[in-house]
Amino acid sequence: MSAGRVVVYGGKGALGSACVDHFKSKNFWVGSIDLSENDKADVSVVVPRDASWEEQESSVIGKVAESLAGNKLDAVICVAGGWAGGNAKKDLAKNADLMWRQSVWSSSISAALAAQHLKDGGLLALTGAKPALEGTPGMIGYGMAKAAVHQLTRSLAGKDSGLPNDALVVSILPVTLDTPMNRKWMPKADFGSWTPLTEVAQLFNKWTLNEERPKSGALLQLITKDGVTELIAAE
Amino acid sequence: MSAGRVVVYGGKGALGSACVDHFKSKNFWVGSIDLSENDKADVSVVVPRDASWEEQESSVIGKVAESLAGNKLDAVICVAGGWAGGNAKKDLAKNADLMWRQSVWSSSISAALAAQHLKDGGLLALTGAKPALEGTPGMIGYGMAKAAVHQLTRSLAGKDSGLPNDALVVSILPVTLDTPMNRKWMPKADFGSWTPLTEVAQLFNKWTLNEERPKSGALLQLITKDGVTELIAAE
Repeated sequence: MSAGRVVVYGGKGALGSACVDHFKSKNFWVGSIDLSENDKADVSVVVPRDASWEEQESSVIGKVAESLAGNKLDAVICVAGGWAGGNAKKDLAKNADLMWRQSVWSSSISAALAAQHLKDGGLLALTGAKPALEGTPGMIGYGMAKAAVHQLTRSLAGKDSGLPNDALVVSILPVTLDTPMNRKWMPKADFGSWTPLTEVAQLFNKWTLNEERPKSGALLQLITKDGVTELIAAE
Repeated sequence: MSAGRVVVYGGKGALGSACVDHFKSKNFWVGSIDLSENDKADVSVVVPRDASWEEQESSVIGKVAESLAGNKLDAVICVAGGWAGGNAKKDLAKNADLMWRQSVWSSSISAALAAQHLKDGGLLALTGAKPALEGTPGMIGYGMAKAAVHQLTRSLAGKDSGLPNDALVVSILPVTLDTPMNRKWMPKADFGSWTPLTEVAQLFNKWTLNEERPKSGALLQLITKDGVTELIAAE
């Protein structure tokens, strides 16, 4: 018997893989949702890349429902996303469209999935971004998408949002995650100020187990200093 | 000789038509951008409805450039938008997709247009929504789209956003506009708390003429009481 059931949207990315590994090590049944399979997950739902937002939503919800066979989820964790820079002068629609698909489609589909298959009191975790709490003139599409995820988080925490009773919805707002890609591209940075992926996975695990839960609707900035990570809720 | 040149995105809608009429009455050259033509405008750019975000951006910018024949714009005013309710339980992707196209595509294309063709010190006005300053559990797609427009406004006011020097960018955040459709659907409401369209058109006109300009990046709530409208900047 498993410790519980979680799905990780973006389960093939750096942070998503770390979450899959972590929950597997804690004896959870783990589903991965991504553009390609994660062999370590109990089930991999592959998102049809060129499908519309609506089609992706219905495909993901249908496949997860099938694999759950009537069971409920303890957590839906969305760590899908991406990054693109760029201001209003060049390729704004192109960059904004990509950011929207990567961050907002995945987050809203996770919300719809939670509305259908999360248990009462379950966890829905999304991924925002600290810079998007303010204007982001050098990465306009990215900022719009993450601001939408922040607002979604607040909406879902409200009355009659469609989430199950007593569900917890939060967004983590990382600054820089300690991933192999980030180490490759920023080799001279202060790694002690980057947030380790296992740290984030452990947070999700705790909240899933109903331990040390923040307030629903919270936007939690992950501030790491000298290797120690603090959670600071944005106003 | 005209008093100046403005384009109105959403120039065929209730507020957009009022803006076209107002600027025409003040002797401006006025371009309308919408899904259908506005015969009162000097030029109507018809947006290809089924085209992608990128295609719409390049189509709109190309057609406006052609009609300007090397001249610059005094103002780009985006009042395109729409409304759909709905929470996470049903049709989230469908509603959110529609809201995104109506509010965010139009706003970001207006920003790209301003980056290319607005004069130094010109006006870019966008349209947000007061409720989206907080969570909107009963209209989740709408809230996400408007929150993105708010963040876009702040990004565009920042350094190196791609807008011309000294451009003013603001969003108006209406509560309820006094339109024929709203009167039809809410016949028993207190019309004295609704904002008249001409009031909004006059604001745009003043800001275009560099009169009583708010701070760039401001989100200006239009609060109407007993027929009098006040502008209150959101934090």
